[in-house]
Amino acid sequence: MWMSELSKRSGLPVPTIKYYLREELLPPGEAVGATRANYDDSHVRRLRLVRALTDVAGMRLDDVRGVLAAIDDTSLSWHEAIGSAHTRLAPLVADSGSEAEQSRVQAVLDRHGWQLDEHSRHRDALAGALAALTTLGHPPKDELLDTYAEAADLIAEHDVGSMRETDRAAAAEHAVVSTLLLEPVLLTMRRIAQENASRRRSR
Amino acid sequence: MWMSELSKRSGLPVPTIKYYLREELLPPGEAVGATRANYDDSHVRRLRLVRALTDVAGMRLDDVRGVLAAIDDTSLSWHEAIGSAHTRLAPLVADSGSEAEQSRVQAVLDRHGWQLDEHSRHRDALAGALAALTTLGHPPKDELLDTYAEAADLIAEHDVGSMRETDRAAAAEHAVVSTLLLEPVLLTMRRIAQENASRRRSR
Repeated sequence: MWMSELSKRSGLPVPTIKYYLREELLPPGEAVGATRANYDDSHVRRLRLVRALTDVAGMRLDDVRGVLAAIDDTSLSWHEAIGSAHTRLAPLVADSGSEAEQSRVQAVLDRHGWQLDEHSRHRDALAGALAALTTLGHPPKDELLDTYAEAADLIAEHDVGSMRETDRAAAAEHAVVSTLLLEPVLLTMRRIAQENASRRRSR
Repeated sequence: MWMSELSKRSGLPVPTIKYYLREELLPPGEAVGATRANYDDSHVRRLRLVRALTDVAGMRLDDVRGVLAAIDDTSLSWHEAIGSAHTRLAPLVADSGSEAEQSRVQAVLDRHGWQLDEHSRHRDALAGALAALTTLGHPPKDELLDTYAEAADLIAEHDVGSMRETDRAAAAEHAVVSTLLLEPVLLTMRRIAQENASRRRSR
């Protein structure tokens, strides 16, 4: 397809697509003569991924470039390619807690057999979230953390198990979009379920 | 206790406490002579609640006043008092989706036996979250929504079941703080569990 069709299929204006080409976020099409190039479905998928990373995940272009490099590097496993997008998501909590919270987090990881990459930002984010609760006088009990971890496993098994994409770019796009956009779904459902649990108990 | 002790116990400066007294967010202490008043533990708890509603939940003072009125109105049930704080939390999603998403939400509520107050903002927030996913080409399957709902029930049963406060103000404060501050805990754990589920499958 020509540039005009790529613009139509992706919903992006031509100047935006040209910008992504210059920034090497989109590989060049197959040259046809001196000024035209032919694009295919892989370009449509790549544009979807770039928009998901920038618009939905709010990533800077440097991080987007890192994700794309991991996806294009076929020496990396599927998990590593998707993980490269995942670990570049902004952490939900900026603070990283004190040593006490850091060791509580490690204990939770150990109890649930969870192994994290040594550079993973999730460990610090979780410790920071625990620190905020403790500062306000509501340190969560182990029992609560374990219930949350159990629920997280239930959800993650479904999230990862339901991935059907066979293309690395499509899988990474799905992983980022669904990780981020399902967060409000989960949190809203938790509030609904709380309202219901509270009503049942107060009858 | 005197004002100075109340300030120390609550960690709030005296002018802030006086402001809350003028705004009727804090009931007056027991008058002792013309210029002094005696405060007790209920004032400390009330200040904690006001700070949780303003600082953690980001509520406007009008909403804070509504929550306090519900807590002080002993004709309301425990559930209604805590619910008044809960329903005044800002919804996580501003958009409310189309009719198609609204009816998907109603179907999920029906399948899980969830009943919502007719004024609840959660219904619209959930429909809005589904609309965002659909717009980006990732409409969630019913199976996914049901897995998330199951996890939400697991969590909410624990959240509501572990409430030990016998005082209405303390219970409302706990409900607001734990609803909000446990959200990053849950989301971070989901990301950790996803990383692990993905690693296990790619071995």
